[in-house]
Amino acid sequence: MARKAIWKSIRDTLSVEIADGEYQPGSKLPTEAVLAERFSVNRHTVRRALADMAASGLVRSRRGAGVFVEMKPTDFPLGRRVRFSENVEAAGRVPDRAVLKMETRPADKDELEALGLPAGANVHVYKGVSFADRAPIAIANSVFPADRFPGLLDLLADTSSITEALARLGVKDYTRASTRVSAEAATGSTAAHLKVSESAPLLRSVSVNVDEDGMPIEFGQTVFVGDRVTLTMDELR
Amino acid sequence: MARKAIWKSIRDTLSVEIADGEYQPGSKLPTEAVLAERFSVNRHTVRRALADMAASGLVRSRRGAGVFVEMKPTDFPLGRRVRFSENVEAAGRVPDRAVLKMETRPADKDELEALGLPAGANVHVYKGVSFADRAPIAIANSVFPADRFPGLLDLLADTSSITEALARLGVKDYTRASTRVSAEAATGSTAAHLKVSESAPLLRSVSVNVDEDGMPIEFGQTVFVGDRVTLTMDELR
Repeated sequence: MARKAIWKSIRDTLSVEIADGEYQPGSKLPTEAVLAERFSVNRHTVRRALADMAASGLVRSRRGAGVFVEMKPTDFPLGRRVRFSENVEAAGRVPDRAVLKMETRPADKDELEALGLPAGANVHVYKGVSFADRAPIAIANSVFPADRFPGLLDLLADTSSITEALARLGVKDYTRASTRVSAEAATGSTAAHLKVSESAPLLRSVSVNVDEDGMPIEFGQTVFVGDRVTLTMDELR
Repeated sequence: MARKAIWKSIRDTLSVEIADGEYQPGSKLPTEAVLAERFSVNRHTVRRALADMAASGLVRSRRGAGVFVEMKPTDFPLGRRVRFSENVEAAGRVPDRAVLKMETRPADKDELEALGLPAGANVHVYKGVSFADRAPIAIANSVFPADRFPGLLDLLADTSSITEALARLGVKDYTRASTRVSAEAATGSTAAHLKVSESAPLLRSVSVNVDEDGMPIEFGQTVFVGDRVTLTMDELR
């Protein structure tokens, strides 16, 4: 098998570093001279890698200023049905999720109210980092009524899909009843998981999904990276 | 007429300062001792003013930590009809607007596309700061097709109402066709107009309103202060 051309290796390495957040959207890449030294190649080879990345829209060269990370925000539609993987795929990105927490515990006051549960009720908590093309774009915290959905956490572990896990527990369809969006600054572990600097602007979405009978089944709190995601709403009622 | 009680004057002064953004939501007020000295009263009088402000939800006392500005964010519904004044009034706040710019000029590329205008078309621009209970909550930039709406800027100057001005030009109703929401950090004059610190998180909404025939009539770009406004969406389709 032919060995991969060196410029392609450089392109792939830099692309992964951008996806990993080592170079943020809008930031400047190191100069050609610095990259040439780093990869022990001549500047022509670096230039070819950068030209290919520019052609695919990942970076943009600004005359006299350098090469900048261009990564466009992912459009994330807030429609009647909000499904993470479908949304990210519809934007032409590859979705992924990393689980941060799965637990069953007593609901707090906001959760009781959002899910219409009696005091003392338990909830299942499913919290994870969401990715688009390997870049972290959100941390999602989903809370479900535990009494109604026994075994949900095992199903989520098996399927990695909320839609699929709920379907196996008899929820054929569910829709978005309400969404509230505010902005806040990233802090601490949130910033670390999302690979953004402290105080980077985040979108916070607080939402309720209901089943076909209008019963609340999921209370979600998600923080999206402000410059990696655009929440879109069409034809509102 | 009876003279206003001193504690009420103190309460009103502090309330206006909070509304003016001198004390930000979440920030700590000066101690009772400092306020007593500032207003040349005893601490009992200050305490009465603060208790009244706490009762109306403007501040909250945290045991041992001090008194903090509590001002709740204003809910701003993104429904089929988005009207600034109606929205703010529905949240129990008093709406206001200060004009920053009114001009007619050639449309840029984004404006041409959003409004479906031919190259070279002119637009009217109406930009201003929006207030809720005297606190700046947003900067709104609205752009309208100039050929279709001659005299719009004069009508806006007269009425201070987009809905009213458009109605006088024959637009009986208009609805929201699309909204895109992202988050960004405040900078420069935007931060100054909104009385927030540089890098404070903002919500940016980019929207198109259409007339009853579905023709775009307004292209809006609004930045909301992240912790003073919550965008709400119910029953999405």
